[in-house]
Amino acid sequence: MVSPYQTLKEEVWEANLQIPKYGLALFTWGNVSAIDRAKGVLAIKPSGVPYDELKVEDIVVVDLDGKVVEGRLRPSSDTPTHRILYRAFLNIGGVVHTHSTYATAWSQAQQPLPVWGTTHADHSPAEIPCTPVLSKAQVERDYELETGNLIVDTFLQAKPARDPEVTPMVLVGGHGPFAWGKDASKAFYHAVVLEEIAKMAIMTRIASGSFPVPGLPDHVIAKHYERKHGPGAYYGQK
Amino acid sequence: MVSPYQTLKEEVWEANLQIPKYGLALFTWGNVSAIDRAKGVLAIKPSGVPYDELKVEDIVVVDLDGKVVEGRLRPSSDTPTHRILYRAFLNIGGVVHTHSTYATAWSQAQQPLPVWGTTHADHSPAEIPCTPVLSKAQVERDYELETGNLIVDTFLQAKPARDPEVTPMVLVGGHGPFAWGKDASKAFYHAVVLEEIAKMAIMTRIASGSFPVPGLPDHVIAKHYERKHGPGAYYGQK
Amino acid sequence: MVSPYQTLKEEVWEANLQIPKYGLALFTWGNVSAIDRAKGVLAIKPSGVPYDELKVEDIVVVDLDGKVVEGRLRPSSDTPTHRILYRAFLNIGGVVHTHSTYATAWSQAQQPLPVWGTTHADHSPAEIPCTPVLSKAQVERDYELETGNLIVDTFLQAKPARDPEVTPMVLVGGHGPFAWGKDASKAFYHAVVLEEIAKMAIMTRIASGSFPVPGLPDHVIAKHYERKHGPGAYYGQK
Amino acid sequence: MVSPYQTLKEEVWEANLQIPKYGLALFTWGNVSAIDRAKGVLAIKPSGVPYDELKVEDIVVVDLDGKVVEGRLRPSSDTPTHRILYRAFLNIGGVVHTHSTYATAWSQAQQPLPVWGTTHADHSPAEIPCTPVLSKAQVERDYELETGNLIVDTFLQAKPARDPEVTPMVLVGGHGPFAWGKDASKAFYHAVVLEEIAKMAIMTRIASGSFPVPGLPDHVIAKHYERKHGPGAYYGQK
Repeated sequence: MVSPYQTLKEEVWEANLQIPKYGLALFTWGNVSAIDRAKGVLAIKPSGVPYDELKVEDIVVVDLDGKVVEGRLRPSSDTPTHRILYRAFLNIGGVVHTHSTYATAWSQAQQPLPVWGTTHADHSPAEIPCTPVLSKAQVERDYELETGNLIVDTFLQAKPARDPEVTPMVLVGGHGPFAWGKDASKAFYHAVVLEEIAKMAIMTRIASGSFPVPGLPDHVIAKHYERKHGPGAYYGQK
Repeated sequence: MVSPYQTLKEEVWEANLQIPKYGLALFTWGNVSAIDRAKGVLAIKPSGVPYDELKVEDIVVVDLDGKVVEGRLRPSSDTPTHRILYRAFLNIGGVVHTHSTYATAWSQAQQPLPVWGTTHADHSPAEIPCTPVLSKAQVERDYELETGNLIVDTFLQAKPARDPEVTPMVLVGGHGPFAWGKDASKAFYHAVVLEEIAKMAIMTRIASGSFPVPGLPDHVIAKHYERKHGPGAYYGQK
Repeated sequence: MVSPYQTLKEEVWEANLQIPKYGLALFTWGNVSAIDRAKGVLAIKPSGVPYDELKVEDIVVVDLDGKVVEGRLRPSSDTPTHRILYRAFLNIGGVVHTHSTYATAWSQAQQPLPVWGTTHADHSPAEIPCTPVLSKAQVERDYELETGNLIVDTFLQAKPARDPEVTPMVLVGGHGPFAWGKDASKAFYHAVVLEEIAKMAIMTRIASGSFPVPGLPDHVIAKHYERKHGPGAYYGQK
Repeated sequence: MVSPYQTLKEEVWEANLQIPKYGLALFTWGNVSAIDRAKGVLAIKPSGVPYDELKVEDIVVVDLDGKVVEGRLRPSSDTPTHRILYRAFLNIGGVVHTHSTYATAWSQAQQPLPVWGTTHADHSPAEIPCTPVLSKAQVERDYELETGNLIVDTFLQAKPARDPEVTPMVLVGGHGPFAWGKDASKAFYHAVVLEEIAKMAIMTRIASGSFPVPGLPDHVIAKHYERKHGPGAYYGQK
């Protein structure tokens, strides 16, 4: 009997296999999920299973409260973070968490990633925020869930609020990157983008020598973002 | 029926496939074009098509005003930049634009790339210029076209003027590298060179520690360039 | 006739082949061993044999005094270091030594590797110690053996003592990394972890710019370590 | 009819093919030679031929005055440098020149490479010298030949003189690395070593943060070198 979640599980399985292909995580250090909003469930990688052993039937389906709906294995320990993101960011369909080297390094620096070039502006017209490190109280309450809350607050409690569709990625201070998108594949794309712009930013610091990194003026940032994402976008095929 | 531009399209298709092979761009973030001066047309990668899905028949042929002459797809959004370069630099036959990591990092530092070694001097006897960032007026006029104008001005309005055949590459400030050459293959070669000398320059900054990077004296720069490109060049086969 | 150490030798052979696969050492610059505590012997890579020529029967079996029990080849010149670690750290089953680039670079900086992120805390809740460089007297006595003693002292003579199961890796000052674990495979895993967190730390230094790297608060370190290793660990499958 | 230099040419051909395999040079930017002292000839890569097109019969045989003895193609433009090294360093059998990224970066910093770790000391007990940049007079006389003389002087005119067998590599200031050894294969090995220790040194600079890199005491340097190269060497198989 075929699972009612077969398509969702296949989408998630395929996106997880991209992690080692793009070098975004060693061993089991990254996970992708996708949501089926109509059914109210998300599918996610099982915890601690290496990518080259991962089978479609290993993908775990959970509801938005975290109850396992289908699957023999434990879901990723980061599942509560994914759940919170799906609950708060209503237009996203996929979430990715990795420990990719350069994005993690920038998270460890506990600084936002500024818009230093058009590669960044092509994907977001604003700096990638870096959350604070979780407080003792947050860690004691529920670590992974509070990580989700912290990300959500970083976007929705900012003044002015940040739009998670406009900046589909975040650095969790001292931890590493999360990215999202309309589906698992697009979320994964954003995870690769974040790793690349973090690497470029690190190399830009060195290239700048004793000069401060100059940053990009707003009109160039806006232009690059809008030619890909604005109402008159003209990048790609119709 | 075979296209009258078949050879040109194949040349461009093959050169675009070199981009992922040499790691010069992720996803669709780079494009190569070539011109047929006799026919007054250039062939270029279609916008937003991944390299591993790209077919010869996808390559778009446009004239020097940007009118599509052949092809079902939209040409690269950077086509106006390519057009301007072909219009102003009359001896070039191919143009490449990528977001390669180290050359882009140097562009983001918004500094020219100095001649710090013979690997650089083998390919150009002068620093690689970095254009200013486009002004608001330029962006509003026509972003990609004005990017081309900015590159052209950086060479032809310099005092003394810079020769685009002698320095077949440029960094666009805050954006990334463009390179060119007598054909698509040679343009691509220059794009790889620029990425490598940018990486070497970044590593040289670190290797130098607290000392300033010393630079190369003019007589060594000239010698290295001329043994490959001068009238008495003796590198390679006759 | 099958060797009584066949299984042990195969485990060690397989783990050594992971070294080039993960890029932890060039040529012959790394070795893995495993111990059979019941039989009182350890199996280790032979000295100076490239990984792609290494056969199971080349693996050398020595006792804890260093006497060769089985094998036609000389054991790794680092065998005395491995022996000392097995003698002092009674719960470990495998040891790895490499010259992996980033962990070696950090060893050369002769500084401990601080806990700057959760990738580190997932594997150890404490900084990775860096031993002092061996004294002249130690080198003259028995270099490889004293390297082992120095590692052991760095853990057991520390006030308070450091637990080698809690921090299964070390940087030998001016030399490079050693890692260990309950078997050869787990020891190798820790060697990869150490290389990755050293690389992340180096990139974090750059990402931080003129700010000092902030470090991770104790409550986050403890949480990350315990969700993987504590009594209530919930990472991975049951 | 088989060439009398067939074995020598095959040795050189095979060693040149290692260059792209180990990533020591892009395109045609590196060359390996080997000498047959009895016949008074050396075999070297032809100039400007890509490695993946290189055939055994393309290898050029020249005598120590530079006269082509066998081969249809021009020898590497760096042949005079190789010749001078063979003339002055009588115990070497192979020479390698590349533009490998990190060794070239260090050459561009125009500083010697200090002994910061045992990976370096395993291969040389002394810093890798960096030659000065060639003077105008040297460049005008004969660039490649004077590059050889400069390397030789850096070793033989040093006070005390440096032994090219003890330090089988050099950085040419502003240019890049040369390495040598008893045959082409060993010379190539040293070229890889130099690239790796240069990369480690660059990463050590970053790892050290605001502290100066501490360096390795003489007794450790000597021990590491001698366990591989001294009269009582015990690394590798008998």
